[in-house]
Amino acid sequence: MKLVTFTESERSRIGLLTGSGVIDLSQAAPELPTQMLSLLQKGDTAMHVVAQQQQAAPHFDLAAVTLQAPIARPPKILAIGLNYRAHAEESKMEIPQYPVVFTKQATSAVGPFDPVHSPAETNLLDYEGELAVVIGKRCRRVSKADAPKVIAGFCVLNDVSVREWQFLAKPPQFTMGKSWDTHSPFGPAIVTPDEVDPHDLMLRTFVNGELRQQSSTNDLIFDCYRIIEFLSTAFTLEPGDVIATGTPSGVGASMQPPATMQVGDRVKVEIEGLGHIENEIVAEPSTSFIG
Amino acid sequence: MKLVTFTESERSRIGLLTGSGVIDLSQAAPELPTQMLSLLQKGDTAMHVVAQQQQAAPHFDLAAVTLQAPIARPPKILAIGLNYRAHAEESKMEIPQYPVVFTKQATSAVGPFDPVHSPAETNLLDYEGELAVVIGKRCRRVSKADAPKVIAGFCVLNDVSVREWQFLAKPPQFTMGKSWDTHSPFGPAIVTPDEVDPHDLMLRTFVNGELRQQSSTNDLIFDCYRIIEFLSTAFTLEPGDVIATGTPSGVGASMQPPATMQVGDRVKVEIEGLGHIENEIVAEPSTSFIG
Repeated sequence: MKLVTFTESERSRIGLLTGSGVIDLSQAAPELPTQMLSLLQKGDTAMHVVAQQQQAAPHFDLAAVTLQAPIARPPKILAIGLNYRAHAEESKMEIPQYPVVFTKQATSAVGPFDPVHSPAETNLLDYEGELAVVIGKRCRRVSKADAPKVIAGFCVLNDVSVREWQFLAKPPQFTMGKSWDTHSPFGPAIVTPDEVDPHDLMLRTFVNGELRQQSSTNDLIFDCYRIIEFLSTAFTLEPGDVIATGTPSGVGASMQPPATMQVGDRVKVEIEGLGHIENEIVAEPSTSFIG
Repeated sequence: MKLVTFTESERSRIGLLTGSGVIDLSQAAPELPTQMLSLLQKGDTAMHVVAQQQQAAPHFDLAAVTLQAPIARPPKILAIGLNYRAHAEESKMEIPQYPVVFTKQATSAVGPFDPVHSPAETNLLDYEGELAVVIGKRCRRVSKADAPKVIAGFCVLNDVSVREWQFLAKPPQFTMGKSWDTHSPFGPAIVTPDEVDPHDLMLRTFVNGELRQQSSTNDLIFDCYRIIEFLSTAFTLEPGDVIATGTPSGVGASMQPPATMQVGDRVKVEIEGLGHIENEIVAEPSTSFIG
């Protein structure tokens, strides 16, 4: 199943993406919650009801709805650095012995086709195409073997990065370069684990149609299950938590000469079986506000 | 005012701490929300109603209630590293030119007098007594001069740290050492800005009554206002976000010999004008669960 959050007639709700359109779960199964986070929190029983709607006729053409971030405000967005061999090498970093974990603030979440802001404070706005895991069950100290049980599904995420701010502080703590508003576009859907093998998917990133990143997820140093084992050793994971698993080689800052994102660029990240997200880079409106 | 979240008769709600007890806002002003996050989100109008209750007779003795985390689940818990000169020196780090920002996962929040878990995975469980700022208004790109306008209040936070995990990955990203469940005890109250000058408060940390940390907050390298300016440049801050501003010298890992926390220890952090928090270190129950 491909679970989506969408807007139609100015009302946000959840649905199922099919080959021919969108099944509106608020019509097909009105007893379900209308928000993805609430659905995930309800667990297996609710997901079973969702599964029963798969054969319904779509209520809308895909063109008639706007896809939003599958989860409007994930409880956590965690991310892994340097998790593809070739990217660690292009970043001139050692191959990590343990996952390099940082946090993207949840306020950075936006939809799969929303604009991404280029703030005035950076000349080094970069893309990082990534496979993301969505947690489906509250859990702690989950073994690698049990990790598949806590996964709600997978999606595509662009771990947009402001390189100057990522390395501003000494020692560098990445969160300030990873959390600008609009810098976590993800989606287009949460694809349930029965549909894909997350460790055998081709990932590609394009800037204005030009291929920049291309790798199979089988090149991940720490796979999705090991990441869940590692994170959940320390803290409770919860339904709706999003984990971006790292980016392959080909980021703009590592190109010769560097080729980071400019206003007007269109950046597309696609993963086999999961679909794609595509975001236009727009100059950030002069955003300064209180209250 | 000293805003608290408390439990009495198994019901959680918000109140005002006075010299002689707790004013139950659910009785004094039933029109107010019963949860702190909702109260903060309602802004000035709701805070004005709270202020009008200050002269009410307390409904409960302090001993009759249990104080909880002022905000059960802050939207963000951000933290600043190496923000006191003497602590940067004892950590053998350079004095930072920019705030060193990392994230504590919100799942680590607990109450001011709750037990703190010592997990089996660490032999280096450490304390860090800190002044914390609670955000009261949604905001972005707030200047240092305007920063006081977005502050709801101040509290005491122990930035409990698992040192092995803080430095496990290369390059070190602190979040894995800072986010274990129960490792962000804070409170006892959100003390509104009219009651204190946040940059002229004595902070002290005691382990089993022995003084370990002692510094005025006037030794902060980046003060609360500069931190808000810096963070809000990159992302939106929201009501209920908590920012731990860093710890002074005297952490256990830097003592000769190192003196980190052991099961049975009682760790107390007090800040002039804000009160204190005190937490017993308990062996973590063997926590492994799914769902």
